Amino acid sequence: MVGSCQSCDSCANSLENYCPTWIHAYGAKYHDGTTTYGGYSDIMVADEHFVVRIPDSLPLDGAAPLLCAGITTYSPLRYFGLDKPGMHVGVVGLGGLGHIAVKFAKAMGVKVTVISTSPNKEEEAIQHLGADSFLVSRDQDQMQAAMGTMDGIIDTVSATHPLLPFIGLLKSHGKLVMVGAPDKPPELPVLPLLMGRKMVAGSATGGMKETQEMIDFAGKHNITADIEVIPIDYLNTAMERLAKADVRYRFVIDIGNTLRSS
Amino acid sequence: MVGSCQSCDSCANSLENYCPTWIHAYGAKYHDGTTTYGGYSDIMVADEHFVVRIPDSLPLDGAAPLLCAGITTYSPLRYFGLDKPGMHVGVVGLGGLGHIAVKFAKAMGVKVTVISTSPNKEEEAIQHLGADSFLVSRDQDQMQAAMGTMDGIIDTVSATHPLLPFIGLLKSHGKLVMVGAPDKPPELPVLPLLMGRKMVAGSATGGMKETQEMIDFAGKHNITADIEVIPIDYLNTAMERLAKADVRYRFVIDIGNTLRSS
Repeated sequence: MVGSCQSCDSCANSLENYCPTWIHAYGAKYHDGTTTYGGYSDIMVADEHFVVRIPDSLPLDGAAPLLCAGITTYSPLRYFGLDKPGMHVGVVGLGGLGHIAVKFAKAMGVKVTVISTSPNKEEEAIQHLGADSFLVSRDQDQMQAAMGTMDGIIDTVSATHPLLPFIGLLKSHGKLVMVGAPDKPPELPVLPLLMGRKMVAGSATGGMKETQEMIDFAGKHNITADIEVIPIDYLNTAMERLAKADVRYRFVIDIGNTLRSS
Repeated sequence: MVGSCQSCDSCANSLENYCPTWIHAYGAKYHDGTTTYGGYSDIMVADEHFVVRIPDSLPLDGAAPLLCAGITTYSPLRYFGLDKPGMHVGVVGLGGLGHIAVKFAKAMGVKVTVISTSPNKEEEAIQHLGADSFLVSRDQDQMQAAMGTMDGIIDTVSATHPLLPFIGLLKSHGKLVMVGAPDKPPELPVLPLLMGRKMVAGSATGGMKETQEMIDFAGKHNITADIEVIPIDYLNTAMERLAKADVRYRFVIDIGNTLRSS
């Protein structure tokens, strides 16, 4: 995000991300009519309101993806009150968003269960990322045993998938927060929501104030994204690999060393 | 509700309505194995924990339906924070639940808009119930003009209906609360939730402590249900009329004067 109207209610509350006219860092038209190129740029002139200070303790490459995956998962953990030590939070999907959600939730003192369709991600989730437990979403017995145990779930999966199993994992008053948007709307099972006063919500990145708070929190807890640094001329290959989800978990382009002026 | 386990987390927090083993006042098995007959009984022995004191200022007949329609609408207004003076709350559907939702929300100082498929309910909503405005949900122009204006919506309609128009009526961070459960699950448009950090939630009646609070609030603000009192031998006719939604808005059986011991 590189701009917003700075006059609407959302902007007044530093929720620039919910401003109806916020400007994407990439592929959008800036106030002056120029196109934004985001992470593909070597230099960028920006309004200081939309600049975030990266803590000295964080490497720039591992910190870069936090300015989307980080704030996208940090913000709902905070806003929906899923940040209290001792709580139990599920993270659906172990990719670019999910692996950061696990790190933030753990740093907040929350018990974290990763929920995935792939049983082979268990070791990664628990040994490497520090999740407390792991559920294979296709395993009916595992899912059944975990019913009604979670205060909230951060659902990072953009593919259309049934919501009922995840609503079932929630305790009464639990919150299922979607941070990815499936193309095809899923069915909403209403009775299970009613019977436990549960909710399904959406959340999209965060405002500038909270983004600074997120990156400072990441600095304090040494949280970075797991990345693969690539030169700019590897970009098309990286895009092909992205389409196959073949990256752990984010590509970062080394613009400084590999982008030559044309 | 006439019983619950009184030992689970929900019961410990006076949310007996979310206890997995709560006992319905009608048509359920009580602890001792007897069947509950609710409002069709002339006498009933009850655990005092499940007895509510009706304020002296309220007539018993008009107060009776509050012990479902009242608490079902009062509880989500409170829990989801839609009770602050100056807020704008929509009420979808003007029936037994909806007409009480309007009365409670108005008594809380909230601006209320009734949303209905029936244009001919406008006079009733505004003149009789005191709603501030009225929207015909099938009128695209009216709905479009009201987009993004509501802090929350209490949706009382049990028939399956699209959620997207109501999500559109919400401001950012707004809450759509369903208190009726359609047989067939509606589609959940996820992107509109994300783009405004909105939520869709469910709520089912309320706990005993809040039910007492609700009826005391009703007593203070002279809120009763609009009712039609009937003798017990009119019951089958009343049931037929109920199926056609032909009642404003609740039937109340005059058990004391019309039920003869057999």
